[in-house]
Amino acid sequence: MKIGFLGLGNMGGPMALNLVKAGHQLTVFDLSKPAVDQLVEAGATAADTIAALAKSDVELIITMLPAAQHVKSVYLGDEGLLAHVSPKVRLIDSSTIDPMSAREVEAAASKHGNLMLDAPVSGGTGGAAAGTLTFMVGGEQADFDAALPVLQAMGKNIVHCGPAGNGQVAKVANNMLLAISMIGTAEAMNLGVSLGMDPKVLAGIINTSSGRCWSSDTYNPYPGVMDSAPASRGYSGGFGTDLMLKDLGLATDAAKQARQPVILGALAQQLYQTFSGQGNGALDFSAIIKLYAGGKDE
Amino acid sequence: MKIGFLGLGNMGGPMALNLVKAGHQLTVFDLSKPAVDQLVEAGATAADTIAALAKSDVELIITMLPAAQHVKSVYLGDEGLLAHVSPKVRLIDSSTIDPMSAREVEAAASKHGNLMLDAPVSGGTGGAAAGTLTFMVGGEQADFDAALPVLQAMGKNIVHCGPAGNGQVAKVANNMLLAISMIGTAEAMNLGVSLGMDPKVLAGIINTSSGRCWSSDTYNPYPGVMDSAPASRGYSGGFGTDLMLKDLGLATDAAKQARQPVILGALAQQLYQTFSGQGNGALDFSAIIKLYAGGKDE
Amino acid sequence: MKIGFLGLGNMGGPMALNLVKAGHQLTVFDLSKPAVDQLVEAGATAADTIAALAKSDVELIITMLPAAQHVKSVYLGDEGLLAHVSPKVRLIDSSTIDPMSAREVEAAASKHGNLMLDAPVSGGTGGAAAGTLTFMVGGEQADFDAALPVLQAMGKNIVHCGPAGNGQVAKVANNMLLAISMIGTAEAMNLGVSLGMDPKVLAGIINTSSGRCWSSDTYNPYPGVMDSAPASRGYSGGFGTDLMLKDLGLATDAAKQARQPVILGALAQQLYQTFSGQGNGALDFSAIIKLYAGGKDE
Amino acid sequence: MKIGFLGLGNMGGPMALNLVKAGHQLTVFDLSKPAVDQLVEAGATAADTIAALAKSDVELIITMLPAAQHVKSVYLGDEGLLAHVSPKVRLIDSSTIDPMSAREVEAAASKHGNLMLDAPVSGGTGGAAAGTLTFMVGGEQADFDAALPVLQAMGKNIVHCGPAGNGQVAKVANNMLLAISMIGTAEAMNLGVSLGMDPKVLAGIINTSSGRCWSSDTYNPYPGVMDSAPASRGYSGGFGTDLMLKDLGLATDAAKQARQPVILGALAQQLYQTFSGQGNGALDFSAIIKLYAGGKDE
Repeated sequence: MKIGFLGLGNMGGPMALNLVKAGHQLTVFDLSKPAVDQLVEAGATAADTIAALAKSDVELIITMLPAAQHVKSVYLGDEGLLAHVSPKVRLIDSSTIDPMSAREVEAAASKHGNLMLDAPVSGGTGGAAAGTLTFMVGGEQADFDAALPVLQAMGKNIVHCGPAGNGQVAKVANNMLLAISMIGTAEAMNLGVSLGMDPKVLAGIINTSSGRCWSSDTYNPYPGVMDSAPASRGYSGGFGTDLMLKDLGLATDAAKQARQPVILGALAQQLYQTFSGQGNGALDFSAIIKLYAGGKDE
Repeated sequence: MKIGFLGLGNMGGPMALNLVKAGHQLTVFDLSKPAVDQLVEAGATAADTIAALAKSDVELIITMLPAAQHVKSVYLGDEGLLAHVSPKVRLIDSSTIDPMSAREVEAAASKHGNLMLDAPVSGGTGGAAAGTLTFMVGGEQADFDAALPVLQAMGKNIVHCGPAGNGQVAKVANNMLLAISMIGTAEAMNLGVSLGMDPKVLAGIINTSSGRCWSSDTYNPYPGVMDSAPASRGYSGGFGTDLMLKDLGLATDAAKQARQPVILGALAQQLYQTFSGQGNGALDFSAIIKLYAGGKDE
Repeated sequence: MKIGFLGLGNMGGPMALNLVKAGHQLTVFDLSKPAVDQLVEAGATAADTIAALAKSDVELIITMLPAAQHVKSVYLGDEGLLAHVSPKVRLIDSSTIDPMSAREVEAAASKHGNLMLDAPVSGGTGGAAAGTLTFMVGGEQADFDAALPVLQAMGKNIVHCGPAGNGQVAKVANNMLLAISMIGTAEAMNLGVSLGMDPKVLAGIINTSSGRCWSSDTYNPYPGVMDSAPASRGYSGGFGTDLMLKDLGLATDAAKQARQPVILGALAQQLYQTFSGQGNGALDFSAIIKLYAGGKDE
Repeated sequence: MKIGFLGLGNMGGPMALNLVKAGHQLTVFDLSKPAVDQLVEAGATAADTIAALAKSDVELIITMLPAAQHVKSVYLGDEGLLAHVSPKVRLIDSSTIDPMSAREVEAAASKHGNLMLDAPVSGGTGGAAAGTLTFMVGGEQADFDAALPVLQAMGKNIVHCGPAGNGQVAKVANNMLLAISMIGTAEAMNLGVSLGMDPKVLAGIINTSSGRCWSSDTYNPYPGVMDSAPASRGYSGGFGTDLMLKDLGLATDAAKQARQPVILGALAQQLYQTFSGQGNGALDFSAIIKLYAGGKDE
């Protein structure tokens, strides 16, 4: 299929490469020349401007951008996609942004005649490279069905979450719970160890009991409990503290607009902000356990 | 085996019955005559006092009491177990109490020559009746091995957590994480639904993503998501709010003594205290989602 | 002086009336005809549109609007003030909005040649009627000096907080601390009373000790402690829960943009959201003490 | 008057000295010989044991001990005060302990025939030396009246808080509110400064507005705002972080026993525990502002 791809960063670059590998014809755009060059070497065509990409003969355009302000600018700006694209072209935004902004852009696309999906991902740069991302997709069922084969070239788990914006809703709700569970796991592990338990034994018990969660059984934050987790390699790699902080900002913003309390969610945001402010923004988000220094030295 | 059993409440009663059914000879004590009568009908022998039970020819005594003050009184009081029991008798306390108190009682037992295990359970009254409890056991390995067949008559999952007191440590750490996960799941579910998602779809996504936890995939607090959960029967039955509040009190107390911060744990305790104070102490602990009334009516 | 006044709501209406009473010639605009009529009866002139007001011969325009979106629209819109006003006219925005939006609008005004102040108020509708408001003012010193006599017709305490936007900064910082102190006072009062103290005696001790704060000594949330406080008249009147919730939203948003943790501030926001979601949004903000029902009935 | 004084630490030593200076005849006891020697040099008599002090001809005994366990041991132990003192001797405990323990000891004293007051202090070592402490006193009015002249030799502000235990209640309630206000002030100051305000200007505005509190107007935690505050001398001296942490532990314990939620109070305790665990336990409690490192470096 002829696909336009906009945004070739740490996530978008590998995702676009997987589309090329799957045999699609890609036209790409990014402000970074090296990022574009890498795709061109792999067989993609470069577009000079967003408008040029919009006016090319692609059937589908995928965007992967850092934040809502970029998504709004790229879609709604005077030189943006909707100003130049044909109504026949389908649109997929894989950026992680707040649900309200996603719905605002999708409403504009719909008014212009374009079918649009919001399809944020989870799985990190590793999943992007391996083509094993999870896509949480909002939009019409038929549009989802049509997009499925393309998304499957980049991911393994493709979930339809309901109408427009629901992909973003699912992502912020899941990631807020993830942050809460991770901090809770950090507290429970540190509490148990400070009271005399072996961390592996404690993790084993939790993982077969009602405290079990992804943060305890798949990504345990206590060093040495799981060889494969960032905790066992100095909290390098993985999903960064500042990315989690961004997602918690989206969750609490969305909650505010919905007038929905998220008490632990807001506290999790503040704890990640505190931890980031102490210079740890680049560490994996499971490093939050380091905020809990007490107990061991006394 | 000849076993003494002290404390025939909602949990202890069914546990003792399972021991009788498994062919053990029980001598029982409780302040409640009906509770004792039920066991006697099933084949047990009644002891008139704690001292009488201690002086009978039992090889093992199991206690199941409401709180640390009762455990201390029953074991350490002038008319208590240690004052009258032979050093040969092995002791198991299945009460849920703070680890420090457990270790204090076990040290006294050890000084008196008795081997003692702390073996708190999870699984609720349903698990007690069905004989499917989880036992988290602290004490010496040989003593654990010797007690295993007896514990297996009352439970399915018997875990050795390390030296004396570690059963209690494992329980408070697990249950604190459980409370945090439950509140986090409640917030994430309410947030998603208030932003337009179907609760079953949202739960399905979380349960295959990184937010997955026992509270989301086995005991979801949102009504209608899981037929088997208390949320789908008005939050009746299950594990009561006030019981969770008690366990959170044990966790934060133990954390204070260990000088270990448990930020979300302490907030969870306060939210359960607030919810209980609003008259909901008898509801299942997943009913905490009702504290989050906002979002829907606006 | 010839003054334009835009926004004649609960606060703006009485403020404009005080300017008329002080002898100023007012040209006013509001979407509500009754609100405009009241000012016209008092001697003001009505403008039909924002553009008409901007093009009239006023020397100064004051705006008092509900939220940042209205401020941006009124100042920056195609039919807004900056599109039609002469560069000689000075501008004062008394709305409470986030500092970043205030600075954005002030930068646009400055580019257009207009001197602009942000001057949010505290003191409520009572202070607006009595002309005893506090104005927290951001902008250049000379512009502040020039505006002082006009502001003194509406308020008693006029404080220069530094350059553009700092009026808003001072207001959100103060009100966030106010919310935290109020909840803290509610907790301390309820704790003391539940442990057996007389509320008046407790308040008296706190008010001469290190716990002393405006919420304890001027606006005590415990019923009966202070006859003049909303707590002693069913939490009617005063500063509404939903208004405090709005200000806490501004504070946490500004904190997020500044990457500054506000842990108690964010929790205060969530507690007010929870309380509002339980149907209490119209009560005075000191009613948050009602969230703490526990202790008394047990 | 002939007075016995037990506990000559950082607080008790200077308090006892002030009694000697006021002309009272003191008999003192402490485990530390240097502490006793200092009082003897000033004119006091040393007692060799608690029992000896109890059996001497004193009319009043004052105790100043670190924690509830010491108070219980000194009063209720086999070799303690109540075992040896005449019922005519009046008792005053100035230790800061939980209200329930205070009431337990006072009930035992009352049963033995002794009038007893709980009289915890605030004002720190500086106030102890200068004789300007605040005493919060629980007990009968007549006993309070009788003790007043003695207490006035050690303090400036002597407040009767109601029946036995209420001195402790007033202290824990006040200090919990103090901790919350201090953290709130730290957040508000850091928020304002990170958004561009001068800290002195911001403090000045808060101190004349509704955010005003002792922590902002008398003990501001931002360096340089108040020359007299610990913040302006590296957070040395003052009221230590670990002492505040102890008082927050008493407050949350008392709240738990009263089934009274203290949401911000519990979070304040956790933040002080976190801060202490990062190695700051000896700093003045206003140093908690250092936990909020964010905002400035980004």
